Amino acid sequence: MSKVVLLLSGGIDSTVLLYYLKSLGHEVSAVTFDYGQKNWKEIKMVKLLAEKTQTPLKIFKIRNLSELAKSSLLGKEPASPNQTFFVPGRNAIFLSLATAYAQSIGAEEVVYGSTLEDYNDYPDCRPEFVENFSKAMEIAYGVKVSAPFINKSKSEIVKIGKELGVDFKLTWSCYYSGRKHCGKCPACLKRKKAFEENGILDWR
Amino acid sequence: MSKVVLLLSGGIDSTVLLYYLKSLGHEVSAVTFDYGQKNWKEIKMVKLLAEKTQTPLKIFKIRNLSELAKSSLLGKEPASPNQTFFVPGRNAIFLSLATAYAQSIGAEEVVYGSTLEDYNDYPDCRPEFVENFSKAMEIAYGVKVSAPFINKSKSEIVKIGKELGVDFKLTWSCYYSGRKHCGKCPACLKRKKAFEENGILDWR
Repeated sequence: MSKVVLLLSGGIDSTVLLYYLKSLGHEVSAVTFDYGQKNWKEIKMVKLLAEKTQTPLKIFKIRNLSELAKSSLLGKEPASPNQTFFVPGRNAIFLSLATAYAQSIGAEEVVYGSTLEDYNDYPDCRPEFVENFSKAMEIAYGVKVSAPFINKSKSEIVKIGKELGVDFKLTWSCYYSGRKHCGKCPACLKRKKAFEENGILDWR
Repeated sequence: MSKVVLLLSGGIDSTVLLYYLKSLGHEVSAVTFDYGQKNWKEIKMVKLLAEKTQTPLKIFKIRNLSELAKSSLLGKEPASPNQTFFVPGRNAIFLSLATAYAQSIGAEEVVYGSTLEDYNDYPDCRPEFVENFSKAMEIAYGVKVSAPFINKSKSEIVKIGKELGVDFKLTWSCYYSGRKHCGKCPACLKRKKAFEENGILDWR
């Protein structure tokens, strides 16, 4: 049992990770980033989730990230599922900020929700990135970085969440900020599939 | 010869590094951070230096860094040389942001001015930090991180600068933002010593 800082995005992976870390007895503080993403619903869901699970939440504004990074997750045009959703440098920036926060509150570890399915699209979700980044952070700030779900599929993560009693209504996967999940974007399709594989029909 | 991004602080180390990288034929873009530091003179000097050396300069504002980090370099009380000047997580955050910037402009490497004298006080200036951090950044974003002066003393760096014709009047070391260097704070004492060892008497 230790004090950890979790990067919480409002999606399935980091939400299940929150419940998972708490089930292991860890004291979890959450951090989320308001980086001018179009999907404002993410932040709304993170706030609800933190409230419901009584998790201390730090929202860190880094609005000018768009000056550095060009991606369809940022900016004013409507998001398109066909565009690339990689924000250059995003995980390293978020993990560095979370590490500084961890150090300031005396947490031993920063945890984030990379999964097996992020591997191909996001090089900063790969085990060799986590290993080297964690070594650097431990040398410099005495804080480790880990991604406990890095070898798990979304279906396996939903299974863990189901067992831990996660309220999936508090998670958001869709690229759009509608009232309900759109059901058509790649994130919705993945969500639906993982839920169906676990016998959950009410996947929205 | 390649395209590199340099973290420029306005101090001797990163200034000499700028001249050094240019002397090797590299195409240098500079980035500096306005993180609410008391020493506003740093940013003023960086601007002058970039102008004089015709170096493209990106100033990245990250004013809310103080929410994460507690240090006497931040905040409203007057700086005292006896306080700790370590901003937790600072180099990792700056290097991550610089890496994102490097990737967005197609630069191959991020360079910063850690020196032998930073070793004891700043763990994020040590070779083993740079090595692991660089590996992580290369895996994730295809950008290397290096610190060419990591094994050099300030006196050696001043020597290199002298040979390269650095205008040291454009560098600022003092903890305070006075008209001249105060001559009494630890940074001034180090500066003076390094200049004297190189026969430079007009060290302010």
